Amino acid sequence: MHASGTHKELIAEIKALVASNDKYSLKGLMHPLHEVDIAEIMDKVNLEEAKYIYLSLENEIAAEVLLHLDEETRERFLKSLSSKEIAEQIIDNIESDDAADVLSELKEEKQEEVISYIEDQEVAENLVELLSYEKGSAGGLMGKEMVVVNVNWSIAYSIRSMKRQAEDVENIFSVYVVDEEEKLLGTLSLRKLLFNTTSSRDKIADIFVSEEMISVSPEDAADEVATLMKKYDLVVLPVLDNEKLIGRITFDDVMDVMQEEAEKDYQMISGLTEEVESTDSVWAHTRARLPWLLIGMLGGLASAQVIGLFDIEANVRMAMFIPLVMAMGGNVGVQSSSIIVQGLANGSFKDLSIFKSLIKELGVGLVNGFICSLIVFVVCYVFNVGLSLAATVSVALFAVIVISAILGTLIPLTLNKFKVDPAVATGPFITTTNDIFGIFIYFIIGQMLMT
Amino acid sequence: MHASGTHKELIAEIKALVASNDKYSLKGLMHPLHEVDIAEIMDKVNLEEAKYIYLSLENEIAAEVLLHLDEETRERFLKSLSSKEIAEQIIDNIESDDAADVLSELKEEKQEEVISYIEDQEVAENLVELLSYEKGSAGGLMGKEMVVVNVNWSIAYSIRSMKRQAEDVENIFSVYVVDEEEKLLGTLSLRKLLFNTTSSRDKIADIFVSEEMISVSPEDAADEVATLMKKYDLVVLPVLDNEKLIGRITFDDVMDVMQEEAEKDYQMISGLTEEVESTDSVWAHTRARLPWLLIGMLGGLASAQVIGLFDIEANVRMAMFIPLVMAMGGNVGVQSSSIIVQGLANGSFKDLSIFKSLIKELGVGLVNGFICSLIVFVVCYVFNVGLSLAATVSVALFAVIVISAILGTLIPLTLNKFKVDPAVATGPFITTTNDIFGIFIYFIIGQMLMT
Repeated sequence: MHASGTHKELIAEIKALVASNDKYSLKGLMHPLHEVDIAEIMDKVNLEEAKYIYLSLENEIAAEVLLHLDEETRERFLKSLSSKEIAEQIIDNIESDDAADVLSELKEEKQEEVISYIEDQEVAENLVELLSYEKGSAGGLMGKEMVVVNVNWSIAYSIRSMKRQAEDVENIFSVYVVDEEEKLLGTLSLRKLLFNTTSSRDKIADIFVSEEMISVSPEDAADEVATLMKKYDLVVLPVLDNEKLIGRITFDDVMDVMQEEAEKDYQMISGLTEEVESTDSVWAHTRARLPWLLIGMLGGLASAQVIGLFDIEANVRMAMFIPLVMAMGGNVGVQSSSIIVQGLANGSFKDLSIFKSLIKELGVGLVNGFICSLIVFVVCYVFNVGLSLAATVSVALFAVIVISAILGTLIPLTLNKFKVDPAVATGPFITTTNDIFGIFIYFIIGQMLMT
Repeated sequence: MHASGTHKELIAEIKALVASNDKYSLKGLMHPLHEVDIAEIMDKVNLEEAKYIYLSLENEIAAEVLLHLDEETRERFLKSLSSKEIAEQIIDNIESDDAADVLSELKEEKQEEVISYIEDQEVAENLVELLSYEKGSAGGLMGKEMVVVNVNWSIAYSIRSMKRQAEDVENIFSVYVVDEEEKLLGTLSLRKLLFNTTSSRDKIADIFVSEEMISVSPEDAADEVATLMKKYDLVVLPVLDNEKLIGRITFDDVMDVMQEEAEKDYQMISGLTEEVESTDSVWAHTRARLPWLLIGMLGGLASAQVIGLFDIEANVRMAMFIPLVMAMGGNVGVQSSSIIVQGLANGSFKDLSIFKSLIKELGVGLVNGFICSLIVFVVCYVFNVGLSLAATVSVALFAVIVISAILGTLIPLTLNKFKVDPAVATGPFITTTNDIFGIFIYFIIGQMLMT
């Protein structure tokens, strides 16, 4: 990797330059660094030092750096800036989708104040529009910076217009062709324009073939947009409102969505309520972990009650296999539920009915249950625990595996039906549920076979 | 979403056209479809039907469709084609990175045979080079299609050369500028060329400013490449071998890597040995799930042995709280290990030493352990289980939470140190380990406090 990165030595050097108030050397040191790296450095030093660094940057760089700060650091930074400074130093220097994201982190009054300081009327209107879309929707991801030509324009005029439009667009990717009503007709590749041999008096219509385009509506969900762009390998995706081109979504936004979605599902299955990193505070870790631990604890206490229902003293040796029954129920439940959640997430699931997946899970559960029960029966028999206990354990194991597979399928599918994130049911929730059911089944079967 | 998609009705219609041998209508129906959708349809019909569809497609479309088939379907298709057909119909019509991926799925002899049928010597050499890189490395992701100009060329000559080179490149993204020794100096944006007002007798050197570029070596790991491109929002990344430009990696390849990495980690924590979808066969599901279930079973049997070590008959009521102790150990272990695994994956971990993260986990474990133990003690006391049992359960719970947090941290970090994927330790592995430890601790403490 040849990216500059943020080594400890570099940070130490920067801290020393800030301490000695050496702005000139600091600027020299920061100049070759990528904005992302500068942001990473600012996240790692204290707020005073970060501000000193921030003020030493040019406005365009500073605005980009701000975008890449940790959310917490950015929040503190934004608080220390006036609405006028935010409008002129930041909003004016970043693309509209990023600007809307920054604004959405401010209070509503401050949002309006910042927008009132934006000089370019069109920019202000675009931001108001972007802020009107919900977070997590295609509208919330899209930017207004595009290069658009009218199909009836001459090529010469189009090139002049594109040149003007291109000033605001970091990555052009596609030139969109629209009709008089701003309806999207297709794209024109830069390559075609660059290497075209037609006369410049020709119209766009002469070198352009209308085509069916993949597009989304502003209300479409962000994760569906990500799935779509991933599926079709799209670097950019137009957003249409009643066929009218209103914005575009680029690959980098979608990469963020993909990562967030994956992390969210991973947190759920891990039993974490929020994103938390090793470097976060003990308090942040406790906040993220304790809720799920308490649910597990409740489940454990409920299991104790279930065991209390039965006369365990009559069959003390049954206690030995409580861990086995619980472990299998939990593992099977997590397997089944995670397959459902991944299937729902990547869209592979939509062709399958609930009924069909239950039948499939039943099949898998029967096979796995049969194999595991058989092995356990043989092991128990060899270890001479007694025929009735061996039978109880293996029959219970079979039942628990099958039932856990069904619960692991049914619960996330039901949650999904009621518009609750099915990933909730992948971690401690499913293991806790299955623990209680499993113990109950084990002792019921024990009561039947052991007496 | 306005993508065409693959509805049941469409598939039924296609099947009917194939059955009635109506090639003409079939072609008309397929024409507006995206290659990805055609591939999805071919995955869903039987092999005979899929072949009929495949043969109705133009070569360029057919080659792209082949790339998007399920691996299994593609394997069967490739087997039915001769080496000459693979070379002429497929390899010639797709980009080099995809071509290398297709070839790598063939046996070595067939690979060589296919390459011998490729007419363009340069294409063949490129493929041999790409095949020499390991899967999962930057070299394995990169393609040879680029637009490259020499810094000393005139702009007029550069444009002629670019036009020629661009024929093979689907998305140009960047024009790379190299020196006489093919060393990468920087990029030239298409925009700059398109809108440049310099005289065409100028050299590239006149309109180009050398810059420090983010790049990778062919040996770098694919997941590190993905992290890098994600971090810096790169749509394309040059691959350098001793500063010489040898290829480029595009965003779509990296999106695939990101998704694969996320899915791999998710599988591990779910207790699945391979990717498996609801639609896969019962046998595929059993194969993916049974190994981890067997590990869980072994753990359960080991726990039974541990319980057998103690005189459970003397304290039968201890059995009631086995589920509680196990559930907490498992949950805490999964939480801790998943935080480590995510930290290692997204690079946020590298600044933290093993020692520091252990201290952090110890802190979190102490806080969570204290809160949970206190609650459990009060609940046990209220439910009148007796002071000694209440004390045993809460002390054991505290110890189990702390020790599980430490194990959950230490095991993945140790695996990582020995170059084993730390994600192995997130699912059934860590819960099984913690179950055994937890039960042992519980009964040891019980022996001390209950007698």
